[in-house]
Amino acid sequence: MGERAVKAAVLVIGDEILSGRTQDVNIAQIAHFLAPLGITLGEARVVSDDRDAIMDAVRALSARWDYVFTTGGIGPTHDDITADAIAAAFDRSIDVREDARAILEERYAASGVELTPARLRMARIPDGAELIANPVTGAPGFQIGNVFVLAGVPKIARGMLEDIAGRLTGGAVTRSASIRLEGVREGDIAEILGQAAKDFPTVSIGSYPWFEELAGGGLSRGVAVVLRSADARALAGAEQAVRALLPAQS
Amino acid sequence: MGERAVKAAVLVIGDEILSGRTQDVNIAQIAHFLAPLGITLGEARVVSDDRDAIMDAVRALSARWDYVFTTGGIGPTHDDITADAIAAAFDRSIDVREDARAILEERYAASGVELTPARLRMARIPDGAELIANPVTGAPGFQIGNVFVLAGVPKIARGMLEDIAGRLTGGAVTRSASIRLEGVREGDIAEILGQAAKDFPTVSIGSYPWFEELAGGGLSRGVAVVLRSADARALAGAEQAVRALLPAQS
Repeated sequence: MGERAVKAAVLVIGDEILSGRTQDVNIAQIAHFLAPLGITLGEARVVSDDRDAIMDAVRALSARWDYVFTTGGIGPTHDDITADAIAAAFDRSIDVREDARAILEERYAASGVELTPARLRMARIPDGAELIANPVTGAPGFQIGNVFVLAGVPKIARGMLEDIAGRLTGGAVTRSASIRLEGVREGDIAEILGQAAKDFPTVSIGSYPWFEELAGGGLSRGVAVVLRSADARALAGAEQAVRALLPAQS
Repeated sequence: MGERAVKAAVLVIGDEILSGRTQDVNIAQIAHFLAPLGITLGEARVVSDDRDAIMDAVRALSARWDYVFTTGGIGPTHDDITADAIAAAFDRSIDVREDARAILEERYAASGVELTPARLRMARIPDGAELIANPVTGAPGFQIGNVFVLAGVPKIARGMLEDIAGRLTGGAVTRSASIRLEGVREGDIAEILGQAAKDFPTVSIGSYPWFEELAGGGLSRGVAVVLRSADARALAGAEQAVRALLPAQS
């Protein structure tokens, strides 16, 4: 575990996210999974089920960030083109691979479901890629270099992350502290936070306004202040300094 | 209203989304808002509160798509750097602008809250930009060319979208049809859908597996099939053809 910042990107693949039909939850899920490993997300992108869009995005993100996690587009239907697009992005050939086929054959034999040609598409794995186990439905993901290709269904994506945790090398773990303020507006505390950000350059300080409807019909408002740092001592110092200057805290 | 496909991108700006602390809902919200105007999302990106990251992303998206909508980073605190980064991306100068200051002065005078120097940051508007009204808290967004800069708080972003709807020129409106199948796996229907995608090239056909836990502890599964097209006649034909071939539908 080094002290270098290790940063990753998420590439969400799917028309259903861009149409708003499905709410993405994988960006936040992957962020939460990586944080304890000392890896933070530096960027996320959502692209459609389009070969060129996937190729361009995965190449750009793979070159820029330590790790890339893609979600979506590895099922059995005609619009599942992620595996082929990623093979093309890295100039790998792709075909049904025997190790992946064996996994599907065993899984479908156990469940009594037929392994149709369409389902066999899920055994298409780029040449030289390492498989990622899928504890939920069997159909594997895969890894090429620093790119991890996961399913889009959040529970399956989560299961696949468990399988690859051991392949990831993290940096210093970022810790955070939250301070919840009621009856305060961002503008009330902006100068305090701006000064603290200067005084503690290794601590990231964010402020997030919140609004809540009260049972009686009124409105409650406030601000959540979040401090983040890989330097535990600086984080504690910044939290203490900020708490001393901020209005009463809940 | 032409028949050309009009496509937009969303740029979500904020460390709190990348850390997973806040779940983004603006991508889906903007997609839902644009659909009836005949505008679809072609891409979305999430970047951190970093000047270079914002500049690079907004330039790339502005060049590539018909419209760009950014969310986040226009509040009063030190980490709100969106306005300055976007001014820099388009080589515009930026300062407190009198029209924006007047809006804030009126709003804060009415509420009896002091217009501090920090709050006055929210009147920093790039030279030549057109303001976007904020019906919720007053502090305006702005438009430069095809880029619309909105707040990150979803209710405020929504209010700002209402203000700019008249500035957007859409294309043909995409309509959709959904078919919900129970007790079916994607692989069962992949060949039917693949053939339909070939027979109806102007219709986009997606399939999305779903899983539900039953009250008794069991598991229910199925697939939602979604057809989309700007060609209402082709959509109806494809839906009829697919329904005739698919298993019993709920």
